[in-house]
Formats: sequence, C-alpha cells, structure tokens
Amino acid sequence: MIEITLPDGAIKKVSEGTTPMEIAKSISEGLARNVISAKFNDTVVETTTSLNQDGTLTLYTWNNDEGKKAFWHSTSHVVAQAIEELYPGVKLTIGPAIQNGFYYDVDFGEQSISEKDFPTIEKKAIEIARGKHDYKMRSVSKAEALSYYKEQDNVYKVELIENLEDGTITFCDHSSFTDLCRGGHIPNTGIIKAIKILSVAGAYWRGDENNKQLTRVYGISFPKQKELTEYLELLEEAKKRDHRKLGKELELFTFSKKVGQGLPLWLPKGAALRERLEDFLKKAQKKAGYEMVVTPHIGQKELYVTSGHYAKYGEDSFQPIHTPKDDEEFLLKPMNCPHHCEIYNSSPFSYKDLPKRYAEFGTVYRYEQSGELHGLTRVRGFTQDDAHIFCTPDQINEEFKNVIDLTLYVLGSLGFENFTAQVSVRDLNKPEKYIGSVENWDNAEKAIIEAADEKGLDYIIESGEAAFYGPKLDFMIKDALGRQWQLGTIQVDYTLPERFDLTYKGSDNELHRPVMIHRAPFGSLERFVALLLEHTGGNFPLWLIPVQAIILPVSEKHEKYAEKVLNSLENHEIRALIDNRNETVGKKIREAELKKIPFMLIVGEQEETSENVSVRRHGGEDFGSISINTFSDLVSTEINSTLKSF
Amino acid sequence: MIEITLPDGAIKKVSEGTTPMEIAKSISEGLARNVISAKFNDTVVETTTSLNQDGTLTLYTWNNDEGKKAFWHSTSHVVAQAIEELYPGVKLTIGPAIQNGFYYDVDFGEQSISEKDFPTIEKKAIEIARGKHDYKMRSVSKAEALSYYKEQDNVYKVELIENLEDGTITFCDHSSFTDLCRGGHIPNTGIIKAIKILSVAGAYWRGDENNKQLTRVYGISFPKQKELTEYLELLEEAKKRDHRKLGKELELFTFSKKVGQGLPLWLPKGAALRERLEDFLKKAQKKAGYEMVVTPHIGQKELYVTSGHYAKYGEDSFQPIHTPKDDEEFLLKPMNCPHHCEIYNSSPFSYKDLPKRYAEFGTVYRYEQSGELHGLTRVRGFTQDDAHIFCTPDQINEEFKNVIDLTLYVLGSLGFENFTAQVSVRDLNKPEKYIGSVENWDNAEKAIIEAADEKGLDYIIESGEAAFYGPKLDFMIKDALGRQWQLGTIQVDYTLPERFDLTYKGSDNELHRPVMIHRAPFGSLERFVALLLEHTGGNFPLWLIPVQAIILPVSEKHEKYAEKVLNSLENHEIRALIDNRNETVGKKIREAELKKIPFMLIVGEQEETSENVSVRRHGGEDFGSISINTFSDLVSTEINSTLKSF
Repeated sequence: MIEITLPDGAIKKVSEGTTPMEIAKSISEGLARNVISAKFNDTVVETTTSLNQDGTLTLYTWNNDEGKKAFWHSTSHVVAQAIEELYPGVKLTIGPAIQNGFYYDVDFGEQSISEKDFPTIEKKAIEIARGKHDYKMRSVSKAEALSYYKEQDNVYKVELIENLEDGTITFCDHSSFTDLCRGGHIPNTGIIKAIKILSVAGAYWRGDENNKQLTRVYGISFPKQKELTEYLELLEEAKKRDHRKLGKELELFTFSKKVGQGLPLWLPKGAALRERLEDFLKKAQKKAGYEMVVTPHIGQKELYVTSGHYAKYGEDSFQPIHTPKDDEEFLLKPMNCPHHCEIYNSSPFSYKDLPKRYAEFGTVYRYEQSGELHGLTRVRGFTQDDAHIFCTPDQINEEFKNVIDLTLYVLGSLGFENFTAQVSVRDLNKPEKYIGSVENWDNAEKAIIEAADEKGLDYIIESGEAAFYGPKLDFMIKDALGRQWQLGTIQVDYTLPERFDLTYKGSDNELHRPVMIHRAPFGSLERFVALLLEHTGGNFPLWLIPVQAIILPVSEKHEKYAEKVLNSLENHEIRALIDNRNETVGKKIREAELKKIPFMLIVGEQEETSENVSVRRHGGEDFGSISINTFSDLVSTEINSTLKSF
Repeated sequence: MIEITLPDGAIKKVSEGTTPMEIAKSISEGLARNVISAKFNDTVVETTTSLNQDGTLTLYTWNNDEGKKAFWHSTSHVVAQAIEELYPGVKLTIGPAIQNGFYYDVDFGEQSISEKDFPTIEKKAIEIARGKHDYKMRSVSKAEALSYYKEQDNVYKVELIENLEDGTITFCDHSSFTDLCRGGHIPNTGIIKAIKILSVAGAYWRGDENNKQLTRVYGISFPKQKELTEYLELLEEAKKRDHRKLGKELELFTFSKKVGQGLPLWLPKGAALRERLEDFLKKAQKKAGYEMVVTPHIGQKELYVTSGHYAKYGEDSFQPIHTPKDDEEFLLKPMNCPHHCEIYNSSPFSYKDLPKRYAEFGTVYRYEQSGELHGLTRVRGFTQDDAHIFCTPDQINEEFKNVIDLTLYVLGSLGFENFTAQVSVRDLNKPEKYIGSVENWDNAEKAIIEAADEKGLDYIIESGEAAFYGPKLDFMIKDALGRQWQLGTIQVDYTLPERFDLTYKGSDNELHRPVMIHRAPFGSLERFVALLLEHTGGNFPLWLIPVQAIILPVSEKHEKYAEKVLNSLENHEIRALIDNRNETVGKKIREAELKKIPFMLIVGEQEETSENVSVRRHGGEDFGSISINTFSDLVSTEINSTLKSF
C-alpha cells in the first residue's frame, strides 16, 4: 500500500500501481469524468500512470491551466497526425501547448500550406479525435527510438533523441500515430470536440536562425464547439481592439524606423493622455505623502555595479556609453531605484523623518531583441510610474496598506473592477536562496499578508515566488476580453539599502538600515495605455480621454458660434475641438465616431438662435438640444461616477 | 595720403603713417583722452600703430568690451613685471585678458604664492602703473627673440617663439619690462588706477596635463578705484547668490559621484519648482497653440546621420550605445529636433494644417569635459523647454511675433524687466557660408526684423552671426547683479526640413518644404533655475516658490489647529507646510528665513481662539493676526501682480 496526499490534505491509502484516474473514480464518478491530467510530486503525469510510491497528487480538469495545457498538447499530436496523413513525407519536430492553444513545428519539405488548407486539416484532425483513441505512453530504449526516426529520415527527432539519456525516453501512441513525448496527455482523443488551426508562421529549428526554417502551425481546441465559437469571437474583438491599430486610429503614438524600433513617439493626443494619467496619479500620490523627484536617464556604470544590476544584466543590456576620452562609462538607466537611493543618501535622516516616499515618472531603457518587441507592450524605452518608499521595518504593514489603497483607487478610477492579488513569499525549505535575516522576512511577509487581509484583497499566496531580495504583492487584472494582465508590483527590498549603505538614526540614537519598498500601480505608462486601449476599445473614461467633445458646425455660417461654444466649454474645463472642415455633418459624425470622441455637439441655425448645442453621445444616444450648462453638468456627473476622490 | 573709414561711414584722408590716437585727436580732444585701443580692418592695433593703407578704423574706450580687453591685457604686463621684481627667477608664460579681468600663468619654480601675498603684488603693480610708462611695440627677428628668452632660461617663451614665423614676432616694452606680445595695449600704464589680484589656481602649461603645472594668477583692474570697490561688492553678493550654494540650502538639487558629475538629481523641492515652471509654460503654450509630444532619450545613429549632427559633433559627444548582438547603434539624444521631424513625418499635412507646433520638455545629453562642468549652468544632461514650429515661409513673421509675445510673457512673469535682443543675420559678402535660397533668407530676415519692430523689441542686428542654416533672434537678460545671460533663441532652420524631406501640400496641390523654427524661452530648465536663483537670491516670485507659507505652532498644544490651518490653506491652493518640531518659534522663524519661505504663520493660543494666523513676511514685515481669508487675498494679490494672464 502507498499513501497518496490530496490537495485538501486528505490521505488515501491505495495499492501500489493505482492510477490517478482510479483515485479520481474512488472520489467521485463526476470528478473522474472531468479529470484530464494530473501532477504527482511536482511532475506532470498521465491519468493512466501507475503510482508506485507515497506522494502528493493533484487532479486537473479543463478548468485548470494545467488541464488546458494537457488538452492542447494532446491536440497537437492529433493535428500532427492529420498533417502527416494529408502531406506524406513531412517531418515532425516539436508540438508544445502554449498560453492559448498549441503549435507544431513541421518541415514540409517541398510542400507548403496556407490559410486555405486549414479547413482540410481541421476536418481530418477532428475525424481522428472522434475515433476516441487512448493516449498511451511507453518507454523505449535510445537505440530503439533512434532507429524508429532514422527509418523515417527525421533528422530533427534524431537530434532530440541524441540529447536524451537512455532510460528516460518515452513514446506516446494513439491510434496509428506515435510521437517522441515526455507525457502530459488527456486520457482519450474523444473529448476534443472542436479544433481550429489559427495561423502559420516561419520558425527556425531550435530558434536558431542558422538552422532550417520550419512551418509553425498554430492551433487551439476545446471540449465544446460553443467554446471555440466564443473564443473566435473574442479573438475577432481583440483584433479590433489591438492597441497598435487603435493607437494609430486615435493618433496616440507612432514608431519611426529612423528613431528605432521599440521606441514610441507620443503624438499630441497620446502625450495629452499620458499627461492626464500622470496628473491623476500625481494628485493622488501627493495626498498619500509622496514627493516627486527628477533624476537623469543615465548613470555611471559604477552605480549599477553597486546596485548589483550590472553583474546580473550587464551583458544582455544596452552596452555602456563611453566618453570621447574614454575615461568614464555610463549606462542608460534600466530602473530608477539606484538614483533614488543616491537621493536618499544625499542627506541624513532620523526615524522621525521616515517614511520618505520618492516618486518619479522615470523613463527607463531596457534592451529587448527585435523579435520580442510588440506595440507598447514590449518596448525598449518606457516610463514607470515609479516610487520608492524608505521606511523602518515597523512601517511595512502601514505602507503596504497605503499602497494598496492607492492602487485600488487608481484601478477603480480607470474602470477595472475585476482583479486579484498574489502574495509571493519565500520557499521555507530553501533559505539559502534569500538575503536578509529570517526575522526581517518573517516580519515583512506577515506585514504584507496582514495588509492584504485588512484591505480585504482577494489574494493567493505563492510560496517560493518571492524575489531573492524580498517578498512582494502583485495585482492581476482581467480586461474586458477576459485576458489576465499583471499590473504593478509592491516589492519589499532588503538588498539595495545594504548595497547603498542607507541608514537612519533610530530612537536609540544608533544607525539602522531602512527597508525599501518599490511600487508602480500602472507598471509602465506605455503598457498601461496599451491595456487601457484594449480594455476599453479606445472608449476611455471621460475624465481621461483627450478630446471630450467635438463641435460640428453644420455650415461655415455657424463657425463663429462654434468658437463661442468652444470658449464656453473651455471655461467649464471641457476639452473640445471644432471640426470646421468643409464636409457634411454626416461625414463629420462618422469620423468623430471612429475617433471615439464621447460627445458630438452639432451647432446650426436652431442651436445658435437658442444658444444651445445638439448633443449626440458616441454610439448614438441623442440628448437633444441643450444649454452648455446642462451639457457641462452631464459631463461632470459622468466623470464623478468613475473618478472618486482619493 | 590714405583713406580711413570710421564706423559712422565718415572718411578721413590722412597722410600715411598716421596713428589711431592722432585720428582720435583730429576728431576731438575728449575722444583722444578716452581712447585706449583700436581695431583696423578686423585686426586689433595699438593706438600708436602707424596706419599705412586705406581701411576701416574703430576706436575703443573703457566702455567697449574691446577697450576693457586691452586695459586688462595691458595690466597683465604690469602684474607680470611686479611678480618678476618680487620673485626673482620666476618664468613668465602667457597673460591674456578674460571676460572679467586677466590672468598670467607663471612658473614660480621653488617659490609659491598665496592669498596673503596678493596685497604686496597689488602694491608693487600699482606703483609701476603710476610711473605712467608708455606701451611700445617693436618687431624682433626670431633669432633675436629666441636669444632673449634663452638667456633667461625661459623654456616656455622659447617654445612659443619656435612656433612663430620669423617676421611676425613682436615684443612689447614698458618701463624696464619686455614681453613677447602680439599687441592690443592701452597707450600708457598711468590710466590703470586700481588693481586687484583675485585668486590663484593651478594650470597646466598649454592646458595639457602631461606638462608642468604653473600658477595662474587671476586679477582685474579699473580706471577708477570706485569701480573696483563696486566690482568687489558685486562679487561678494554673487558668492552669496551662487546657485550651487543656494541650491543646497534650499534643498533643490544635488549631485552624486556614483550617478556621475554634471548629472543633477532634483530633490523634492527642486522637482516641484521645475514642475511649476513647466506647468506655467505649458499653460501659456497651450493658449499659444502648441501641442505637447513625448519622444525617447535615444535615437538610432542613423537619425543623427540624417540630421547632420553626427558628422558635426559625433566624435566629441557621448559615444554610441551598442546592443548585445552589436547589430544596432543608438545615441543619447543631444537635441529633440530630429525626433520632432520624425513626428511631423508620421502623417501628411496640407497648408491648412500649418503651423504645427510641437513642444516637449525634452531632456538631452551632451558631453562636456569634467573641467567645464559648473553647477546647473554647465551640465551633461538638461531639460530644454523645446518646441519646433513647422510653418509655411509666409508664416515666419506671425510665428516670430507669437514666440516674442510668449517669451516676453515668460520673462515678465519671472521678474525680468531688463533685456535686449539680437537679430543674427547672414554676412552678405559670404553667401557660400549659408544653405537655402537667397529668396528664403531675404524673406526670413525681413520677417524676423519686422516682427522685432512690430513687437517694439530693443534689439541690435549682427551681420554674419546667423547659423549656416538660418537667421535667429536671441534674448539677453541682465540679472540683479548686472551680469548678462543669453536666454533661449528663436531660430529659423531650412536644413532639417530638407534633410528629413518634410513636406506639406500647398494650395496649388503640389508638395512644398515647410520652414522649421526652433525655440526655447528658458533655454534649459537647469540653467534657468540657476539664473533665477542668482537673480533672486532664492526669493523666487511667490507663484513659483515651492513652499509659500510655513505654519509655526508655538507648542505641541496647537498642532491640531495648525493642521486645520494647513487644510484651509490647501483649499485656497496655497502651498504650505507645518514645522511641528519641538523647537522654539524663534528658531523655527530663523530656519524659515534661511529657507526663504515667503510667509510664516505663527499659531498659538490667541490665534486659535480668534481662528486667525499671525503672519510674518520673509525679511520681517509683520501683518499681525489676520484670518485665513485675508491671508489668502494677500497671497493672490501678490501673485497677480507678477503673473499676468497670457
């Protein structure tokens, strides 16, 4: 008999060789129907794997990320089989699950596929799935494995096998198809009800551009047809909301080949949007006791040697900047913390002065390979809404609560309601991984968890996810498309105060080390604007949107009145424009809709006479002919409903 | 007979060999008494030099910069003589005039001098001056010159002479003293009435640190004792107002060795000051039709190759930033214009869209040698209040007028009343020096001069001072110490639109080149804050100063009321702090005075009961016990008296 511990702590005594599926059945038939994958002692196993020792077992369904992974990886086998049958002679390489679906890299030789071939592949794959084939793992010797693939002249699999140790090699069979595979499958192809091939792209074998280019076939699959339909609809919506597309349409930002990839240029409307976000946060931060500082975008290499960043990231970063005489070396700053440490160090502090909270909209530069760059979400230069709090160990809890309050206010004002948090603490079994005293860690972890509790956060605790220099709390938000984004982190840091020899005089008149807290509610303005664009589809909250109203004179005759309306709106602090092009009002409305301008104010004969404006909301709602004052109240009411005071 | 043209265009026919002094006498005895130097056909000459050909003659008095230069250079001979007499065996090297006074670099051998020796040197020098010795130039052969200095074992003068061409070498004699000298002296030592040795410093021979270190003796002299006294008082005041000293006292900025020299770190109060300046300018710029943009602090080398900056400054600048794979090269941006050109280029414009005015508080980085760095006035990283106007050639006049209006508003709001302007135009005799068509230049110069006239500017026109790419207008202000500072430039540019191939569609439906105007009223925020500090001695205009009022509770008992006052002030948008340290009110007042906080609000028993505050102005003025409302009115009135609406 062996002892199997379940996630809830319950222990099952079963005979050696029992499988996860059998254990699921012993719990409930319903569970067994839904179990599609399992983990035994940190290793992914099949539901049919014999368990031969004591250990911890987690069972996964479609509702777990791990379950989806097994589902999609298993589908990749089916799709590979379909491709092999449809395109004899192709050579299969690898086919992993990814965040949304899976891919398979295939050497099509002289053949090739394109979008028009997808339905054929999908049809063939779903036919195979319907055959309800079990996935069956078996061990093979290295010689056996090599001979199998050499026979097929598959140099890729041969190369993979050559790098494996004899005795660890497994094949997975289903139907007539066999693949070299480590495992992690669902029990049977029958539960795959919907398969979609999404796209093809070139991919070098092993990611090395000196190797042959293969065809990467991306796909996704679901246990229900309805789920695929919904996913494709979401995908369609995501395309429409792609921030790169919206950024262009709304004239927010652009990129220039000459300036360089991954370096956004903010156009007037985008710069205004950024500034509004900054002003909004500045105001809240001021109330929360932060002080703004300004630091340069470079620092001597020495600064980053002191901080430890150079040793860790130097080689993979933008390289040092030399002076003409070559007697000094600078680096583009990849983060603001070393500069803020030097500001802290520029004057002596006592415990009565703490906490000091230095905030900066600090633009930092980090090298990313060109292939990794993506719109505003992966860039080489971005502005962090950064701040560093220098406090005593006793103040951590209070400061965490303050930062949580600020973050909740920020997210709420931007229309994000759906978020969770993760507290990352140390792995108690690996104390050697962390710096700082056990007492400090105990204290900080307790302070964070208590702060999260006191603020009623919906959070999970992840052991072993803390950085080596301190525990942290991350906010995760779900956007309107249900996608998860990690937002700013609140991070305790014991190492920089040590490395920069930061001190404060305690009530005992002795020098002590302050604790440093890094935090950034937005993370980066660039990434946050991208997220906002995709979350709102460009329909920003009214307080934030660059142009709140556009005045549309029906003809040249009413331009003077339009000017008057504009002035009046400016006095009401409403951001407005006039579209006095010689176009029809219909066309002007269509373009204003495209630009997501919330209010269109049409002014013609009737409006001028009554000193009113005819107000149309973006999307079509009609407020009729109203006075500027009434319109202004309308705007204020809408703003106050999202932008609460902090 | 030869023809001598005077600056007013008058022509004097005189016999060959006539001297400038004789010509001065022929004009008036009064002029002759004051003439101390002269320029003949672009060459500085003695007042006793024989003129042997037709040419243009300018006569200089003490009131001209050129006159002062001759005066101070001549004094350096006298001081050198004094040093030689007091310290036999020293070796003299060079002794030029500088902006304020002169220096002489001396090899003191085993001897040395310090501040306590200055009076002795001054006494000896003034004794010599009183001897009323004429300065007499004479030509010497190279052999003669070498032999003279070899006899004295003066390796420095020998080295200088060896680099001169035989036939061009001159000595200057006065009294018993002879010096190798190109000329440019006053007639006689007798007019030097006051001499002050200011300081000594080390200086390498020929500025090369591999050479011997000499002693640089700095001095200044005047034709009246009273002028020296005034100058020394000014110097004393300037020391007190040194922005580096005030910046530290007011906690505005700091420097860190680790971050790097010449890279200011703005502390909270300084960052707030900067932000206020930015907000002030942003608001005015918005009204003036500017749009803010945001661009990165780096750009591909290619960008600066296109702009032409790389060819011109590349080698003397911060060197290129390489990527880990070394497949791309970036430069720290030394200016914002190339980025703004790329923004302009990101969408097509018609003549109806122009002018486009892109503004950015753009932080730029320019390499300066460490010896050149000085506080905030010479730094390696600074933020320009930059903007680029893209307009049609017809719009130059209007745009210049707008920029002049904005600049006058900015300077007026900051308490600068005393300023002049300079219009720099091309040298019509050297058309090959300039790019752009003659028609464009004619048009632009006319537009600028008309704009300056229409705006009633006090300006001078300088021929040949235009940049190769366009004419410009500079503002010069005099600070409270009478020192002149050059502020931002308004510069027409024909070359960047060409290099970046910028276009707009004209009313003729053809593509045309826009004209670009660069402008920055402050120049750089760093330099401007330095200027403001030295101009105001830290007593910034009330609207600008970070802390407008400090609340001083007389004891702990009144802290609650102090908080209430603070809240009330915040509601009145008055920036205030509470000093609730456990110190006497007297000490708190003294410290608030030192920090130049304009208003001190003392709150005690009596104030709490009457719900008032006792108001003391920085400097001592007492407003007695008044209500917060009355105090708020006081503040508004003072602000409105400087900060007019734009």
